[in-house]
Amino acid sequence: MSGNTFGKVFRITTWGESHGKGVGVIVDGCPPRIPLDEGVIQEKLDRRRPGGSDTSTKRKEPDQAIIMSGIFEGMTTGTPIMIMVNNKDADSRAYASNAHLFRPGHGDITYEKKYGIRDWRGGGRSSARETVGRVAAGAVASLLLQQHNIQVIAYTIELGGIKAVKRDLHAVYQNRYYTSDPDVVEEMDRRVDMVKKKGDSLGGMVEIVAKGVPAGLGEPVFDKLDAELAKALMSIGAVKGIEIGSGFQAAQRLGSENNDPILPDGFSSNHAGGILAGISNGDELVMRVSVKPIPSISIPQATIDKNGRPETISTSGRHDISPIPRINAVCEAMVNLVLADHLLRQKAIS
Amino acid sequence: MSGNTFGKVFRITTWGESHGKGVGVIVDGCPPRIPLDEGVIQEKLDRRRPGGSDTSTKRKEPDQAIIMSGIFEGMTTGTPIMIMVNNKDADSRAYASNAHLFRPGHGDITYEKKYGIRDWRGGGRSSARETVGRVAAGAVASLLLQQHNIQVIAYTIELGGIKAVKRDLHAVYQNRYYTSDPDVVEEMDRRVDMVKKKGDSLGGMVEIVAKGVPAGLGEPVFDKLDAELAKALMSIGAVKGIEIGSGFQAAQRLGSENNDPILPDGFSSNHAGGILAGISNGDELVMRVSVKPIPSISIPQATIDKNGRPETISTSGRHDISPIPRINAVCEAMVNLVLADHLLRQKAIS
Amino acid sequence: MSGNTFGKVFRITTWGESHGKGVGVIVDGCPPRIPLDEGVIQEKLDRRRPGGSDTSTKRKEPDQAIIMSGIFEGMTTGTPIMIMVNNKDADSRAYASNAHLFRPGHGDITYEKKYGIRDWRGGGRSSARETVGRVAAGAVASLLLQQHNIQVIAYTIELGGIKAVKRDLHAVYQNRYYTSDPDVVEEMDRRVDMVKKKGDSLGGMVEIVAKGVPAGLGEPVFDKLDAELAKALMSIGAVKGIEIGSGFQAAQRLGSENNDPILPDGFSSNHAGGILAGISNGDELVMRVSVKPIPSISIPQATIDKNGRPETISTSGRHDISPIPRINAVCEAMVNLVLADHLLRQKAIS
Amino acid sequence: MSGNTFGKVFRITTWGESHGKGVGVIVDGCPPRIPLDEGVIQEKLDRRRPGGSDTSTKRKEPDQAIIMSGIFEGMTTGTPIMIMVNNKDADSRAYASNAHLFRPGHGDITYEKKYGIRDWRGGGRSSARETVGRVAAGAVASLLLQQHNIQVIAYTIELGGIKAVKRDLHAVYQNRYYTSDPDVVEEMDRRVDMVKKKGDSLGGMVEIVAKGVPAGLGEPVFDKLDAELAKALMSIGAVKGIEIGSGFQAAQRLGSENNDPILPDGFSSNHAGGILAGISNGDELVMRVSVKPIPSISIPQATIDKNGRPETISTSGRHDISPIPRINAVCEAMVNLVLADHLLRQKAIS
Repeated sequence: MSGNTFGKVFRITTWGESHGKGVGVIVDGCPPRIPLDEGVIQEKLDRRRPGGSDTSTKRKEPDQAIIMSGIFEGMTTGTPIMIMVNNKDADSRAYASNAHLFRPGHGDITYEKKYGIRDWRGGGRSSARETVGRVAAGAVASLLLQQHNIQVIAYTIELGGIKAVKRDLHAVYQNRYYTSDPDVVEEMDRRVDMVKKKGDSLGGMVEIVAKGVPAGLGEPVFDKLDAELAKALMSIGAVKGIEIGSGFQAAQRLGSENNDPILPDGFSSNHAGGILAGISNGDELVMRVSVKPIPSISIPQATIDKNGRPETISTSGRHDISPIPRINAVCEAMVNLVLADHLLRQKAIS
Repeated sequence: MSGNTFGKVFRITTWGESHGKGVGVIVDGCPPRIPLDEGVIQEKLDRRRPGGSDTSTKRKEPDQAIIMSGIFEGMTTGTPIMIMVNNKDADSRAYASNAHLFRPGHGDITYEKKYGIRDWRGGGRSSARETVGRVAAGAVASLLLQQHNIQVIAYTIELGGIKAVKRDLHAVYQNRYYTSDPDVVEEMDRRVDMVKKKGDSLGGMVEIVAKGVPAGLGEPVFDKLDAELAKALMSIGAVKGIEIGSGFQAAQRLGSENNDPILPDGFSSNHAGGILAGISNGDELVMRVSVKPIPSISIPQATIDKNGRPETISTSGRHDISPIPRINAVCEAMVNLVLADHLLRQKAIS
Repeated sequence: MSGNTFGKVFRITTWGESHGKGVGVIVDGCPPRIPLDEGVIQEKLDRRRPGGSDTSTKRKEPDQAIIMSGIFEGMTTGTPIMIMVNNKDADSRAYASNAHLFRPGHGDITYEKKYGIRDWRGGGRSSARETVGRVAAGAVASLLLQQHNIQVIAYTIELGGIKAVKRDLHAVYQNRYYTSDPDVVEEMDRRVDMVKKKGDSLGGMVEIVAKGVPAGLGEPVFDKLDAELAKALMSIGAVKGIEIGSGFQAAQRLGSENNDPILPDGFSSNHAGGILAGISNGDELVMRVSVKPIPSISIPQATIDKNGRPETISTSGRHDISPIPRINAVCEAMVNLVLADHLLRQKAIS
Repeated sequence: MSGNTFGKVFRITTWGESHGKGVGVIVDGCPPRIPLDEGVIQEKLDRRRPGGSDTSTKRKEPDQAIIMSGIFEGMTTGTPIMIMVNNKDADSRAYASNAHLFRPGHGDITYEKKYGIRDWRGGGRSSARETVGRVAAGAVASLLLQQHNIQVIAYTIELGGIKAVKRDLHAVYQNRYYTSDPDVVEEMDRRVDMVKKKGDSLGGMVEIVAKGVPAGLGEPVFDKLDAELAKALMSIGAVKGIEIGSGFQAAQRLGSENNDPILPDGFSSNHAGGILAGISNGDELVMRVSVKPIPSISIPQATIDKNGRPETISTSGRHDISPIPRINAVCEAMVNLVLADHLLRQKAIS
């Protein structure tokens, strides 16, 4: 059973490959009568566009969203919303020369082993381009969440080892790394420049906060809110770790340190990250993901070809230096999707 | 839509509360003709029994597994396998006195807000006792995996800040903390004793390794193997973080450091943790979880009652000092369940 | 992917075989705070008990329902409700002599071919005894529906060719065939007696009506209300046909005859059976199912054994003459389950 | 939870409205390496085109299928296959004048009540145009089934009361009604002409046969093969009844008449319609559906407007006289989809 559908009540199915005819998504289960047009989707898509920052490629990738179904007179109708973006800038020649090789750190070898066939043009289905559908669907989810005063924001807290100290959410979209700490932007610039010259790439960390989430979302014992968020975020290509609230620090804490005392006006700390026993507790949701460096680097690497013979590969070209900050929009979208789904799931039994 | 079912093809649904009549699980989708009896299940259940180590409570909790359906003449039949354990040691009086209070770090407050009613006896559905069903089902999954030479093992790599250095998997079941490093057992003992005296509790870390996993498991783009593992493990009560392979260290690495070069006889490193683009690559799966301290401590904590009035609570009683090592069996079970499910999902399209 | 789960939001999973340790069901997704005890379930189970009428076997089959989880202080808690009935009267000797044969009209041959193993005791999983779980779950669903003034009733409209003329719903539980027409009871008696003497069996028809269903239930384009009802009813062992409203008569009607004109106070006819475009229209739901005769008959029939050799089989014993009227309770349960599920599904987007 | 997805392992999700930008489908879970191009899909789509017979409208509706994703070098890749048809002939003016009225027999009133908004242009989502996606997906399913020598054919056995006597499957695509009995074509012509002059419409019956289905498909106890077929077929707009094998005649048969004796070389009759206990038995699958007349007629009918005021409506225009024979291609597609899904479901446990 394939895995291209996410969510149970607010549910999306993405389709498309990097260099196929297009990419897109069906959003099914969105309540009717929500105002929706292409502008809202476009705004979110633009945030994951390459070229927005120094870590990203210089490709022109307009990504014009088209809503093909599910709206009438500017409103959702309760029927499936299909949103697509036609692929335009798809020159596969750069990939053809390496089509017989498995790029280290990429899904080339695993797609080949799983399916016995793979579309090697631009990474095919495993390309980050697939996330266009996620971000478009996340935009629809965010409209539903707005009606309930829920807001999700993702921001860079580390890039190539440079850590953000501040958590100034107003600063996030004012700088090219979408970091909450504008004071580290210059240092990040220097780090990026240095690595770019070497033909290498960088990882980092993204923190995501959700404000206004009511208590009661999450479905124990398996579809707990934190479990669903973990899956949602780990399903993003470059993510290798996820933590909620105190996360990995919880391992070294005492119970008396890690518990959040409950006062009449709320929790006095938020080590839980806003989730207790898999259900939102009314506090802010706080989570962080670890992002691995882009595996495509121009530094030569050892690999094998389809027949198992040793080769050396150098994947120079129009590649990003880091998934950050483009991945932030995808993290935001995935959290929006989880929350929209659980908001509706809770409504069903309320 | 509630969330008590896990898996798509090999699928389980757990039921039961801590102090209800029993706890159990339906395993649906298990292939027919797999030899199965209660002994296999009992062995796994015994590993999550309290009393096995110094971190655990001294309750007597026999947990005798009964297979109620789905087997005939010692073999699975392809029909639902219901396994249950009757609750015997259920004295709810200790809980009655705190029934009106929300224990910090527990799901009391969130269950109340979500459902408007909660079974406060022993934590009800949010009790760790629910994991009996998971472990029983995981035992069934492990039999299927054995037929494919896949083996999963979970072991303690940190307890109360004491870190295991060695990865000696043969040592795991030879010590009371199920750690891979027998040399740190004494230090863990001292740490546990000290904290026990203070009425506090401890967190830690568990690493899980899966050997023999064939390349090709995992269903992009949402049901990627790492995404499913993240969900599976994060759905366990005390888990606050999950990482695969290089995990959170990937954030600080260069692409040239983090990529695993591919040689004719396999990968020369395993930063990927055995998963590329959400599909197993044939290498060992390696993942780690962060486990928070047991929130029930005898040290008094601030909380509120059901009417929002401030109170102080001390949850002394028969509580474990740490979810470790009992949680290890649950981690193992969840990974077994994910792998069994994806093994069958891959069969469907092969 | 196995098929023992029914429903999406109000969802049940049944388990158990005819002569195993018991049969039962998990009801997951039932809203919290609905008063529930074993009495309500018992009442419905008693209606599908053998011995209630002349068409049924004389076995004593007490079927005492036990609620194992999901209730607290007499109310549902929103957690899985596991209801079970222990098997008591399970003498498998009568079946042992025919264990190597495939009974015509039964699932013996297909279970063998599908799973390569089958529990031949009492029909195993394909026994009508599996419906205990359905009826118990249907009782829970009916409590939810009652809160919304929805009521479902199933009644016999044909038995062995004897057709009910009247539709007197008050008469249904006043006669042993659960027919809406008490005037045909004697004729049915004679038909049953005659067939019983010959060692043969009878089919018939059941009509099911649902009153008080609000407009708006059903989820196009695949989970239409009529599609879901068709699946629900066709999943009952003996059912071979299902029709909604004008059903098979619609084939011979003109559009001008079959359309239901809409007046300010409602539809002036109900050929639609209460469903338009897969969504309830506020009128009564009306559907009918065709029930085949019990395949177990004492008249000798040609069959083969497991090795394909020709044999003759006579399945005398404690068998019903007709699935009717015991099947009525199952039909009622399945319709209750569909409506409960769709009521909650609609809530999620309202 | 919305209902636009069908199937579990071989799974489709349709999108699109009659007069929106297009209609289409995502096919997810199709095995890789199946040769696929637009020609195969086009052939099936052409069979549901209007204009193919005297019962159909004269609209030009080219329905050019475009495969947007999921194929590479003429083969499926195991990733989602998105197939779409752009809407071209969408003049909504004819509908605008009746936009405030609920057409009898249509989903206008129920969509309005369910969603509080509806796309009244051409019936919107409830239009038969939605079935373009089903037929396209069914074409993909048929390619998978062909590899297993399974073939499905649907044919008209009744139109406006005129019944086919013969079952000559070679004749089916040789006549404009897709009937298995060419001898009744002229009589059907006369019936259609007469009704057309009166501005009325006709119902009928379609029989569907599946040849080569191996024993063992179907997933008891809810996803039985007959239950899934019933749902699949009842989810088609005009279908009001479905029967398998002896169907509604089973109600009047004795067990000794209805059972199919088993001989060493197979069943000596097929009252079961190829399914026993919800699992295919190796015989031909045989099922029939009742199709109601097209509700759009030019004869004036009573209805109400959105404010509940009485009105008279006459829906003249480019409407078919009967869903038959265009619906046959849809029936065929739905049966193909069920069989493809269950073929893969069975593979998972074999």
